[in-house]
Amino acid sequence: MTTVVCKFGGTSVADVERINAVAETLMKHRADGEDVVVVVSAMGKSTDALVEMAAEINPKGSARESDVLLSTGEQITIALLSMALEQRGQPARSYTGAQIPIVTDSRHGSARIKDINPDKMRADLDAGRVVVAAGFQGVDEQGNITTLGRGGSDTTAVALAAALKADECRIYTDVDGVYTADPRIVPDARRLDRITVEEMLEFASLGAKVLMTRSVEFAGRYQIPIRVLSSFEPGPGTLITFEEDDTVEQPSVSGITHDLDDAKITIRAVPDKTGIAHAIFGAVSDADFNVDMIVQNIGDDGMTDLTFTVRRAEMEATLALLEPIISELGAASISGDEHIAKISAVGVGMRSHTGIAATMFEALSAENINIQMISTSEIKISVVVEDKYAELAVRALHRAFRLDEA
Amino acid sequence: MTTVVCKFGGTSVADVERINAVAETLMKHRADGEDVVVVVSAMGKSTDALVEMAAEINPKGSARESDVLLSTGEQITIALLSMALEQRGQPARSYTGAQIPIVTDSRHGSARIKDINPDKMRADLDAGRVVVAAGFQGVDEQGNITTLGRGGSDTTAVALAAALKADECRIYTDVDGVYTADPRIVPDARRLDRITVEEMLEFASLGAKVLMTRSVEFAGRYQIPIRVLSSFEPGPGTLITFEEDDTVEQPSVSGITHDLDDAKITIRAVPDKTGIAHAIFGAVSDADFNVDMIVQNIGDDGMTDLTFTVRRAEMEATLALLEPIISELGAASISGDEHIAKISAVGVGMRSHTGIAATMFEALSAENINIQMISTSEIKISVVVEDKYAELAVRALHRAFRLDEA
Repeated sequence: MTTVVCKFGGTSVADVERINAVAETLMKHRADGEDVVVVVSAMGKSTDALVEMAAEINPKGSARESDVLLSTGEQITIALLSMALEQRGQPARSYTGAQIPIVTDSRHGSARIKDINPDKMRADLDAGRVVVAAGFQGVDEQGNITTLGRGGSDTTAVALAAALKADECRIYTDVDGVYTADPRIVPDARRLDRITVEEMLEFASLGAKVLMTRSVEFAGRYQIPIRVLSSFEPGPGTLITFEEDDTVEQPSVSGITHDLDDAKITIRAVPDKTGIAHAIFGAVSDADFNVDMIVQNIGDDGMTDLTFTVRRAEMEATLALLEPIISELGAASISGDEHIAKISAVGVGMRSHTGIAATMFEALSAENINIQMISTSEIKISVVVEDKYAELAVRALHRAFRLDEA
Repeated sequence: MTTVVCKFGGTSVADVERINAVAETLMKHRADGEDVVVVVSAMGKSTDALVEMAAEINPKGSARESDVLLSTGEQITIALLSMALEQRGQPARSYTGAQIPIVTDSRHGSARIKDINPDKMRADLDAGRVVVAAGFQGVDEQGNITTLGRGGSDTTAVALAAALKADECRIYTDVDGVYTADPRIVPDARRLDRITVEEMLEFASLGAKVLMTRSVEFAGRYQIPIRVLSSFEPGPGTLITFEEDDTVEQPSVSGITHDLDDAKITIRAVPDKTGIAHAIFGAVSDADFNVDMIVQNIGDDGMTDLTFTVRRAEMEATLALLEPIISELGAASISGDEHIAKISAVGVGMRSHTGIAATMFEALSAENINIQMISTSEIKISVVVEDKYAELAVRALHRAFRLDEA
C-alpha cells in the first residue's frame, strides 16, 4: 500500500470552505487506495489576534508560553479537518505534536525534531483511518509544548514522511509547482516536472519561497521525494527528487530566481591585513545577521575594498554595528545600498555544461544591465544588479537559457 | 506554607484587561505568602466561533474531535495569564490537562477524573512559580484529549486542590458569595459567611448557580474547603465547609432558593397497579430526562394521579415519550404545565428545629399563594407554586425566616 503525507498551509485551510476542499482532495487519495497522513497549519491569519493579545499583556512573554499559545492554531485545524473527513464517511483521528509524539529539543520557537514514533499513526493507517497531524509543533522530553519556527509545518510533513517511510510527501501550496522563473515576471515561465533537491535548496534559499530550506534539507537527508502542488487547482505539480536522473540529458539551467530582500554593504580602502575579515564578519555573525555574497578586491596599494550582502531589513543595524569597527580598522568609509537585486541561474546541468557564466553575462550586457557582484557555486551563478533591472534581467536570462522551450 | 487553588471562569478572563486583573489578584496571594495554583476557563465566548465552524463542517462531528477543538480555549488562557504573571516578575508555568496530567476516563464531553499526579505542580510551587492550569480538560489513558463537560473548570479546581492537599479552593465568580436569597429579588438578602457542603449541594441543585453540584460533591468527598468570592470586587466571600460547626447555634434556615427552569407533568387517573411507576419513570430515565419532584395521590377508586417535575426544556419531549405509554396503561390524560416555580428553604439547622414546614406554609398562605406540590428532605423543603408568584414567595419566606437579620 502506498503511504503519502500531505501538507496544507494556512491559506489552504483558511476557512470552512477551504477545509472542506482539503477533505475532498484527501478523499480522492483514499479512493486511489493510498494511506494518508495529512499535516495542517493554523487557519489563515487565525493566530494573529492571539499574538496581538500576548504582545499587549507582555511584550517579552516567555518563549515557552508563546508556544503554548501559538500551538492552539493547528490544534483547531486538525479537529475541524477530522470532522470534515468524518462527515464524508472517512474515519479520521487528529494528533497534536505532543500526542504523536514529535519529540524535539527545548528551543522554544525554533525547536529541532529529535525523534518521531510512528507506531500510533501506523496503527491508524492500518485501521483505515486518515491521520490528521498538527504541523509546526512538538513536545520536548520534559513534556513542554514546542514550536518549530518558520516553515515548521513543511518540516513536520517531511519528518513524518521519513518516520513512516512514506512513498511521497506532498506539499500543497498556492502555486502549482516550481517554475523556471516567477510567472508574474516571465509570462512564458514553465512548470518543472522534476527538480533535484540540490536545485530546490538553491531555489528556496534564493527567494523562490515555495518551500523552506530546512524541510528540503530534511527531505534530502532522508531521501523523501517531495511533490509541490496546488491546493486550489488539480495537476501533477513538481517532484523534488534526491536522484539525479543521469539517463536524461539535463538542461544547463533549470530556472532563474530573483531576490529583492537583500542589501549591499561596501567598505572602502581597508588596510589589507590578516584578521580583517574575521574582525568584520565575526562581529556580524555574533549579532546573528545573515551575510550572503562576499566580494573582496585587493588593490595594488595594500588596501582592499570589501562588498557583501545582508538581508535588507538588517542593513541599518549592520551598518551601526560595523561603523566603530571599521573606523578602528582604519578603513576609509562604509556605505549601504538597498537598491539591489540578486538574480541567479540554477541547475545541476551546470556541472556538465560549460559557458553558462559567459551566456549569462552576455545576456545582461545586451540589455545594458551592469553587474555589481558575481558569485558562483557548483550549480548556481548569482549576480547583483540594480533593483530596477530585476525583472528585465530575469526575462533576459530566461530567454537566453531557452527556458520557455519544453 | 499555605497552598491555595484559585479558579477564574470565562467572564473573569474575558479580555486582556480582565486577565491582567486576575494576575493582580494572584500577586496579592503571593504577597501574602501563599503557594498558588490557578485554574482558568476559556476566555468569555471565545469558543463559540469554533463551535459554529464545527457545526457547519459536520453537525455530528465525533466527540473526540470536539474535545480537541474546545480544549484550545483554555490553552489560550493559560498561556496569556502566565505571560501576565511573568510581566509582573512572577515566574509562572502553564499546564494543559494532558500536561499535568489530569487522567480521566474516555467519555469525551463528560469525562470523569480518575487520577491527578501533583508532582510537577508541587515542584513548581516549591520553586516559587505560580502554576497556571487549564480547567475543563484532561487526557485519557490512551492519550486522547477529553473535556469534563458543564462546570468542568470548577471540578478541575477542586480536584487539583484535593490532589495537592491544598488548604483552600477559591472559586472566583461574578457574585461575591452565597446569599440567603437572590439579591435581585430580595434587596436585603445577606451574604452568608459560611455554608455547609450539604446546604451548598441543595443550593446548587435548586438553581442557585454559583457552583456546579459535581464540584461541590467532589469537595465534600475530599474535604476541601471552597470559598466562593467575586473576581470583580474584594471581599471574604462565602466559605463552604465540610464541618458542621456544632458550637454555634445554627439558624433554622440558611437561605431561600427559587428555580424557574422546571415544568410539571400531570397524569390523571392511572389504574393503580404494580409496575405503573416503573413503566413511566423507567421510560423517562432511559431517555435521559431528569425527573425531580414526584407526588402521587391514590384515590378511593383504585385510580392514582401522578405529578412530577422535569426540566422545562425537556417537557415537550417527555410528553411525546409518555403519551403512547400512558394510553397503553389506561390513564385518563397527560398534561404539561410550564408555568411553575420551585421555591425551597434550605438549612442544616432544620435537623434540630421543628415547625419549619408550618412556618413556610403559613407565610405562603398569608400571601394567598397556592401550593401545588411539596417535597421535603432532611435539610430542605421545596414547594411548587405558579411561576408568577415566584418572587413574592421568595420575599415572603426570606422575611418569615428572618434571613435579613444578621
